[in-house]
Amino acid sequence: MENWKEKIRLIVNHSIFMKVVMGVILLNAILVGVETYPDLRRENASLIHSFEVFFLWFFTIEIILRMLAEKKISHFFHSKWNVFDFVIVAGVLIFSGTYFISAIRILRVFRVLRAITVVPSLQRLVTAFLKTIPSLGTIMLLLSLVFYIFSVLGVLFFGDIFPEYFGTLHLALVTLFQIITLDSWASGIFRPIFEQLPFSWIYFVSFILIGTFIVLNLIVGEIINNIQEAREEEQQNDKVEISKQELAKIRNEIAELKELLLKKEAK
Amino acid sequence: MENWKEKIRLIVNHSIFMKVVMGVILLNAILVGVETYPDLRRENASLIHSFEVFFLWFFTIEIILRMLAEKKISHFFHSKWNVFDFVIVAGVLIFSGTYFISAIRILRVFRVLRAITVVPSLQRLVTAFLKTIPSLGTIMLLLSLVFYIFSVLGVLFFGDIFPEYFGTLHLALVTLFQIITLDSWASGIFRPIFEQLPFSWIYFVSFILIGTFIVLNLIVGEIINNIQEAREEEQQNDKVEISKQELAKIRNEIAELKELLLKKEAK
Amino acid sequence: MENWKEKIRLIVNHSIFMKVVMGVILLNAILVGVETYPDLRRENASLIHSFEVFFLWFFTIEIILRMLAEKKISHFFHSKWNVFDFVIVAGVLIFSGTYFISAIRILRVFRVLRAITVVPSLQRLVTAFLKTIPSLGTIMLLLSLVFYIFSVLGVLFFGDIFPEYFGTLHLALVTLFQIITLDSWASGIFRPIFEQLPFSWIYFVSFILIGTFIVLNLIVGEIINNIQEAREEEQQNDKVEISKQELAKIRNEIAELKELLLKKEAK
Amino acid sequence: MENWKEKIRLIVNHSIFMKVVMGVILLNAILVGVETYPDLRRENASLIHSFEVFFLWFFTIEIILRMLAEKKISHFFHSKWNVFDFVIVAGVLIFSGTYFISAIRILRVFRVLRAITVVPSLQRLVTAFLKTIPSLGTIMLLLSLVFYIFSVLGVLFFGDIFPEYFGTLHLALVTLFQIITLDSWASGIFRPIFEQLPFSWIYFVSFILIGTFIVLNLIVGEIINNIQEAREEEQQNDKVEISKQELAKIRNEIAELKELLLKKEAK
Repeated sequence: MENWKEKIRLIVNHSIFMKVVMGVILLNAILVGVETYPDLRRENASLIHSFEVFFLWFFTIEIILRMLAEKKISHFFHSKWNVFDFVIVAGVLIFSGTYFISAIRILRVFRVLRAITVVPSLQRLVTAFLKTIPSLGTIMLLLSLVFYIFSVLGVLFFGDIFPEYFGTLHLALVTLFQIITLDSWASGIFRPIFEQLPFSWIYFVSFILIGTFIVLNLIVGEIINNIQEAREEEQQNDKVEISKQELAKIRNEIAELKELLLKKEAK
Repeated sequence: MENWKEKIRLIVNHSIFMKVVMGVILLNAILVGVETYPDLRRENASLIHSFEVFFLWFFTIEIILRMLAEKKISHFFHSKWNVFDFVIVAGVLIFSGTYFISAIRILRVFRVLRAITVVPSLQRLVTAFLKTIPSLGTIMLLLSLVFYIFSVLGVLFFGDIFPEYFGTLHLALVTLFQIITLDSWASGIFRPIFEQLPFSWIYFVSFILIGTFIVLNLIVGEIINNIQEAREEEQQNDKVEISKQELAKIRNEIAELKELLLKKEAK
Repeated sequence: MENWKEKIRLIVNHSIFMKVVMGVILLNAILVGVETYPDLRRENASLIHSFEVFFLWFFTIEIILRMLAEKKISHFFHSKWNVFDFVIVAGVLIFSGTYFISAIRILRVFRVLRAITVVPSLQRLVTAFLKTIPSLGTIMLLLSLVFYIFSVLGVLFFGDIFPEYFGTLHLALVTLFQIITLDSWASGIFRPIFEQLPFSWIYFVSFILIGTFIVLNLIVGEIINNIQEAREEEQQNDKVEISKQELAKIRNEIAELKELLLKKEAK
Repeated sequence: MENWKEKIRLIVNHSIFMKVVMGVILLNAILVGVETYPDLRRENASLIHSFEVFFLWFFTIEIILRMLAEKKISHFFHSKWNVFDFVIVAGVLIFSGTYFISAIRILRVFRVLRAITVVPSLQRLVTAFLKTIPSLGTIMLLLSLVFYIFSVLGVLFFGDIFPEYFGTLHLALVTLFQIITLDSWASGIFRPIFEQLPFSWIYFVSFILIGTFIVLNLIVGEIINNIQEAREEEQQNDKVEISKQELAKIRNEIAELKELLLKKEAK
């Protein structure tokens, strides 16, 4: 019983198996791109279809093999990356044959994301990214607060005269997101309002100052996180700073001391 | 007399009391958001009104309790956060019943900001932000100077041909703020002027170079502030920088040892 | 002879003298701002004129006093800040009475910049800024090179079909400056060209990637400059890092050694 | 035989030779700029032509000399900078006399880039830049992945209603590049789509958040790269980090000393 598990494990962890999976993901990525050109899709419809069937089988078998390689199948779901893989593969299987064709098409695009699971360096990078997010939690909360308050104020102040941008709370949130990216905040949004409400500049300028200041500190936090990580890695070697000369002097004195003692001993 | 003060203090500092306050602030936040949708407001007018009355009473009682919990009521105003809370709560009370309905509505939105006072991590973050502002004082002064001079020059140069952007000093200041955010500075402001005044590029390019350079240094200052703070926190823990004197002391002790040995030798 | 020099020096370096000068510069700044409003200027024409005459005399006398306070008048020009002050003050004097009214108006605006010379913290900041510029020399040279080459290429490629943006070399330079600030580079410049020349994206994308990469490194250079300066200031105290425990252990061992020796001595 | 090689080497490495080459490159740069003005080109057509012939000869002879100065001509191609020089010079030679006039004109512009090869500080800077690129490899891969997936999704979602921006995969890639530079992403692309597809904000906001987050980490990586390099350079000078082992050695020596003393005591 344990015997075939061992065999599957050998297959699954083999570098050729990994490279084949990577190759199929790449092939899937190319196909998904090719399909966006209507002419190419029409001409190669049957080829694309057979490839799609192949992908369906391949990824299903791959994920089953990887499940069987685990001691218990439930162990497989301990890694979030595996859950991610499973959802994407299972999703296509479930929707396949139904009429949710657009859902299948989107899932097939997301299959390209499986490259992150398969390429170890990518997986490490994304894991590192996801780890930095919680440390930015409080600042995100503050940013949300600022967004929310300015949205409500925006609807109160400009909702009637500019319904396109500040008509409802969710429109105002989208508008504020546009403003914080600084895209056409003045030319598109502020200037027309400014013409009618001369004091509207207080709202916009204060939002930009507060918003960009918080975003700046988010970025600074990210920089410091990374610097400290880099420094800690460096300090794995457990080093302390001291000038070489200083160190040499101390050791010389100790050596002299020893010599003196040894001389005495010899006497 | 002191007895009931103690009791109030127990209530006020109790974690359940804090959580209830947080909850009510959150409820207030949701209601303020719901009110921005005219349909929802009309349908639930009476519900919203009764909630508003509840908020008015709740926050008034809460702040009175927190005042009474202090040894002297004047102590309450030593913390700027308390002053902030008081102004918002009192403001609604004062305007309530008057015809300044829009003032009340704005204050009710600002009540959401009380989340900063109530959530300790948010309060710490905002305090930290406010602390970094004075250290950026000189650079802010320089930026104001540059803004002011370029505004006056802008009115002198372009005031007549582009009254919309450079007609008066305050319009020019708003325009320069738009330019420093780099939003449509060229497409909206510079290009039309450039067509008529070929040398206007000197004004715009120099303002952008000087302005963004100063803003860049503001940001860099912020980064360095944060890096140093992070470093200081780190050094609280395990490592200390030893001063040269410390090192000298060690070497002195070794030198003394040697002397003692030599004296013995001489004996 | 030396006697009155000493007196002048006392006056010039007196804190009240400095504050008065600052005050007059501030007054000049306000007046320059007031003048941008045509109505205010017309109404207070005589007042503004008499103030202007006062400023002319005040700054002239101030600068003569500061010159006389020097051992030799030529010493005055050793400081670049003094040269800057002299040029502005002398400029107004020279143009005064001539028909170059706009030149005088501009110089009067620049007089506000003298605040930098008078406020020590501002002077230090600007000096620090100007010092960082040479260290960014090579990167500036590279940026100029990239700008120049892309400008010439821009004229070659798009000069005929888009004379407004790429008609001549200097127009192309201005356009590239706009592109590097990322303002309407796509909506205003790239998209219309892209419609006619499908391969134009190579030009724009490569310029943005190369340009922003160089600018990014300019900024990074600025950050590192500032970090190192901050660190050097810190290291004025000449510290080395070592863990406190480590240090304590070394000193304990030395202390034990000394004790042992002293005990022997006592024997 | 070796004799003339030595002589050529002396010439090639002579500072005057380098300055002359720099001068000719500068002259070429100016001429290339002058040519962009149609009037100037027409008036000085013969002069420009003779200069061009001179440049052709000069750079050809220069590169031949530099080749001959090497022990073996193949050694010349070991440096990538030499290959770069050779391609540019040889390119002009090959296309010269053919009808690929525009290719020649572009290559003549690229000759200005040879300034990088000739000015050592520029060459060092560019080499340093190119070196940082591989360290950003994984993050670039991730960015490409995100771009590719969002492009395909963009075509799926908006291809039909907005063929100008999302009609094909390569159009979508260009559009996403525009969005990540934040230029008119809302005013030009998002707003018109948002009007028809209310849920399109999820696509745009998530792309901007993910995209700018990755780009931010790219920049942070660049900053940390540079900081570490700067630190390493600094530590060349005066200070060394001592490893724990070094510290242990010192303590061992002190311990040995103590042992010796104790042995004596025991005697």
